[in-house]
Amino acid sequence: MRLQILGCYAATPRTLTNPTSQVLEIKNHLFLIDCGEGTQVQLRKNKIKFSRINHIFISHLHGDHFFGLPGLISTFRLLGRDKELHIYGPKGIKEAITLFLKLGDSWTNYPLRFHELTSKESQNIFEDEKISVETIPLDHRIYTNGFLFKEKLGERRLNIEAVAKHKIDKCYFQNIKNGKDITLDDGKIVQNVELTFDPPKPKSYAYCSDTGYHPEIVEQIKKADVLYHESTFLESEAHLSAKTKHATAKQAAEIAREAEVGTLILGHYSTRYKSLELFKEEAQEVFANVELADDGKQFEI
Amino acid sequence: MRLQILGCYAATPRTLTNPTSQVLEIKNHLFLIDCGEGTQVQLRKNKIKFSRINHIFISHLHGDHFFGLPGLISTFRLLGRDKELHIYGPKGIKEAITLFLKLGDSWTNYPLRFHELTSKESQNIFEDEKISVETIPLDHRIYTNGFLFKEKLGERRLNIEAVAKHKIDKCYFQNIKNGKDITLDDGKIVQNVELTFDPPKPKSYAYCSDTGYHPEIVEQIKKADVLYHESTFLESEAHLSAKTKHATAKQAAEIAREAEVGTLILGHYSTRYKSLELFKEEAQEVFANVELADDGKQFEI
Repeated sequence: MRLQILGCYAATPRTLTNPTSQVLEIKNHLFLIDCGEGTQVQLRKNKIKFSRINHIFISHLHGDHFFGLPGLISTFRLLGRDKELHIYGPKGIKEAITLFLKLGDSWTNYPLRFHELTSKESQNIFEDEKISVETIPLDHRIYTNGFLFKEKLGERRLNIEAVAKHKIDKCYFQNIKNGKDITLDDGKIVQNVELTFDPPKPKSYAYCSDTGYHPEIVEQIKKADVLYHESTFLESEAHLSAKTKHATAKQAAEIAREAEVGTLILGHYSTRYKSLELFKEEAQEVFANVELADDGKQFEI
Repeated sequence: MRLQILGCYAATPRTLTNPTSQVLEIKNHLFLIDCGEGTQVQLRKNKIKFSRINHIFISHLHGDHFFGLPGLISTFRLLGRDKELHIYGPKGIKEAITLFLKLGDSWTNYPLRFHELTSKESQNIFEDEKISVETIPLDHRIYTNGFLFKEKLGERRLNIEAVAKHKIDKCYFQNIKNGKDITLDDGKIVQNVELTFDPPKPKSYAYCSDTGYHPEIVEQIKKADVLYHESTFLESEAHLSAKTKHATAKQAAEIAREAEVGTLILGHYSTRYKSLELFKEEAQEVFANVELADDGKQFEI
């Protein structure tokens, strides 16, 4: 899994900072998460192939997470896209996009599939053989979901030496990887565990932005490899954090500690602060493994 | 009058080029004309004070002229604006902006006044003591207006020497500037023309984008000091120009020649061409005084 930050600053796009958007590469998917104004330019700057994006997840309908979407959808059309594009986001997103396309008489020549979200409970919104995506209900001023991206347990890995020792034919390999025991020609049964190693531990990535301090999410994101948690403010602005339903760096770290995640990535910074290091310092007083998101930065998960 | 190009490229924002937006400074107004995605960042890059913009003119509702508007309106709110903002544009623009604000539960804390346009005839849409703004009906795939910004004839300029010679008191100066003759204490009448010079010739700026070749506009923009006319294509792509209702550089120049404008500024270039000079060369075969718009470029009018 690889996470590419396109933008991680709160509120408005500025000369050198971008509102929220990120790309998660997971098992051959390229998922776009949120789409603030300017996201399509950030995709170009970061040399991400537009045609590889087939699923876009929108946390909520504030401009800094959403106003880049009409333009991106239009650009897909101009680039001659014909593949389906799936958009997951709060109810209303379909009406908004449809109205903009209608006003410009600029219908897409590719299918646009909306998956509108209304539930306040977590839902499984995407699933294939290798991964799943669940919503993480968050606590913001308007209806907002985070997203939990989880790899599924893969197939068992073949122990080449063990297989060779028993002279097992290749045609059984897939069965073995699927966990089956094997009966040899002499009738002897070889246990699967002797022929395989455990599959790699499935990884998971939890995206939580925007939200106030919301410990209700801890259970769902427990032991996630990486948690991206918004930290718009520092504790010195805790009063604003409570009022605007945003989190402080310390609060993000408390969620990370309680959920026992591997790494906490901070983002969605208010531009009032002179240095991002202040966020890291505050969070590390609570939780050691803290990284700072920044526009253009990549994280291997 | 000063024209600041924020973006002048067709279709989609790219790493180094921006969709259409420009700022016209005229008699203490700062008018924003069109608002493609990324316009607010271009305003910042070009150090234009957001608070000086009170009127926004939108030619049509294609994304590359309009998708930056929801973000700009939101940013005005975040900057604490309280002054009225006037938006002139095709019918539908109010519904679109209102829906986006509603979905984000982010109503502006300043008055937002929409002036929706539907007429296919030219209309006077703004007027004060010093200037007026008219729509220029254009020929594009959807309902589109250009805009003609015109200074009004100013007051006559005082001939200081002549006034001194006749020992005329200051209290009469405004009357003189307004064109009145003066009766001296001895009963002698001094003609106004002896006391004043003609006012400066009022200037005008015609903005025409997007449009196909549309000679119907010639009469209205006759002798404009500056015409900004779109030239999406060169004549080598005239077939595309006709199909998409965009103009070629040659067609823009023909309009400029027929309208006897002072200067033609070309813009709204398709990014398929390697060099902007090709546009200038083609246009100059028809009309001599051609300038090339480019993002960040300023023109004194």
